[in-house]
Amino acid sequence: MQKYKPLILVTNDDGINAPGIAALIEVMKTLGEVVIIAPDKAQSGMGHAITINSTIRINKRNTYDVKEEYSCSGTPVDCIKFGVNKIMDRKPDLCVSGINHGTNMSINVIYSGTMSAAVEGAIEGIPSIGFSLSDYTIDADFTASKKIVKTIAEKVLQNGLPEGVCLNVNIPKLKLELIKGIKVCRQAKANWVEEFDERHDPSGHPYYWLTGKFENLDLNDIDTDIWALENGYVSIVPTQFDMTAHKAIAEITKWEF
Amino acid sequence: MQKYKPLILVTNDDGINAPGIAALIEVMKTLGEVVIIAPDKAQSGMGHAITINSTIRINKRNTYDVKEEYSCSGTPVDCIKFGVNKIMDRKPDLCVSGINHGTNMSINVIYSGTMSAAVEGAIEGIPSIGFSLSDYTIDADFTASKKIVKTIAEKVLQNGLPEGVCLNVNIPKLKLELIKGIKVCRQAKANWVEEFDERHDPSGHPYYWLTGKFENLDLNDIDTDIWALENGYVSIVPTQFDMTAHKAIAEITKWEF
Repeated sequence: MQKYKPLILVTNDDGINAPGIAALIEVMKTLGEVVIIAPDKAQSGMGHAITINSTIRINKRNTYDVKEEYSCSGTPVDCIKFGVNKIMDRKPDLCVSGINHGTNMSINVIYSGTMSAAVEGAIEGIPSIGFSLSDYTIDADFTASKKIVKTIAEKVLQNGLPEGVCLNVNIPKLKLELIKGIKVCRQAKANWVEEFDERHDPSGHPYYWLTGKFENLDLNDIDTDIWALENGYVSIVPTQFDMTAHKAIAEITKWEF
Repeated sequence: MQKYKPLILVTNDDGINAPGIAALIEVMKTLGEVVIIAPDKAQSGMGHAITINSTIRINKRNTYDVKEEYSCSGTPVDCIKFGVNKIMDRKPDLCVSGINHGTNMSINVIYSGTMSAAVEGAIEGIPSIGFSLSDYTIDADFTASKKIVKTIAEKVLQNGLPEGVCLNVNIPKLKLELIKGIKVCRQAKANWVEEFDERHDPSGHPYYWLTGKFENLDLNDIDTDIWALENGYVSIVPTQFDMTAHKAIAEITKWEF
């Protein structure tokens, strides 16, 4: 009897040609049948954006030797929607996004295209994981990451995930033997202190680059993703798309309108 | 002694010229000093996107007779960041976004530029509210909405909001006297069943429009925003940016990596 092969949907936000997605695909090919649909260009910081005011282009490719492979002009979330609804003939068993060049810890989960793709996978009812490596460079070393990715993806294929929950995985920039372990955490409280870098175009008109400094506001607790990563652990934050502040319902219900 | 005037930051995702933001500004001018920074074009479905791969342009305007007014080439979240960090000399007392032409119930909170602006306000530590009217048309009647907006904004100015929480307010398309009341709810479980409308350009190449059907998966409970809106109530969902699935931490911690 032939062994059941999981069907795996792969995307990212750094674009289909990024080394991070190549590493992710390499691992996924050892676990199942792979379908890739990923942005044709970098889509960092796109959050949960979808393309509704313009059109989407899809191009078939054949560079990674997988079941099917497409680039998409849209956002990471568009990729998941298109993959699930238009390309795949059945619901995937796993949806993975990344490996992102750079972390998506703490509040950055909300700005991240990588994680929004995983969240969209969860909305579609697919066990989904976003992977990020704490190294922004194009020539980042994904050797340790590939081992970690395989371990966690196998566990998710085996156990599934609770309804409405996906995983946000951040991997420290360390050799495998120096990584202390895998920690399940909560999203740390943090913030960006923004600066807008003002420049002037050749006509003298101002324009701005969004930039800023990341500020950890959660220094005392050791159950956060920032703590884990800074202390040599892989962090896993179970992440949900229900944004209801359930505890606040009772309080605000008391207001007399 | 002069009465303290709240400082209010106003944005939206339909663009600075939309009738919905005009209605919102009209109300806010009765409550405090108003600073507007809103997208120079429609930014629906932008979710929590930020502009990091391109530059941002800001234009000073003077159409609404307020303290300060700018249009911005970026997303609704960019507008909040720029407003708070670059324009305003102190933290606003209130941040409001909308009034959106169309609802942002249930899972749509995550795709919505209107609500992402309010969530960003909460990240910045500002009491924030996103308002949406259940009428997609450009000539929507905001008469009842203006009364509702004023009532809720006054309550928030008076009581503040719990840390990390903003409000997602949806208003039914009804005359004021037919609105049954204001209900504090949770985000309903729902989903989009996507379709991609395939067309062909003059050269015969395919392109796609993202479209779909909204599907309520939460038909039995009366504590959801969809139920409230469909039954003639204004819905308020307290909304948080902590996406940690806290209940799942214990379960996933049991996995042996």
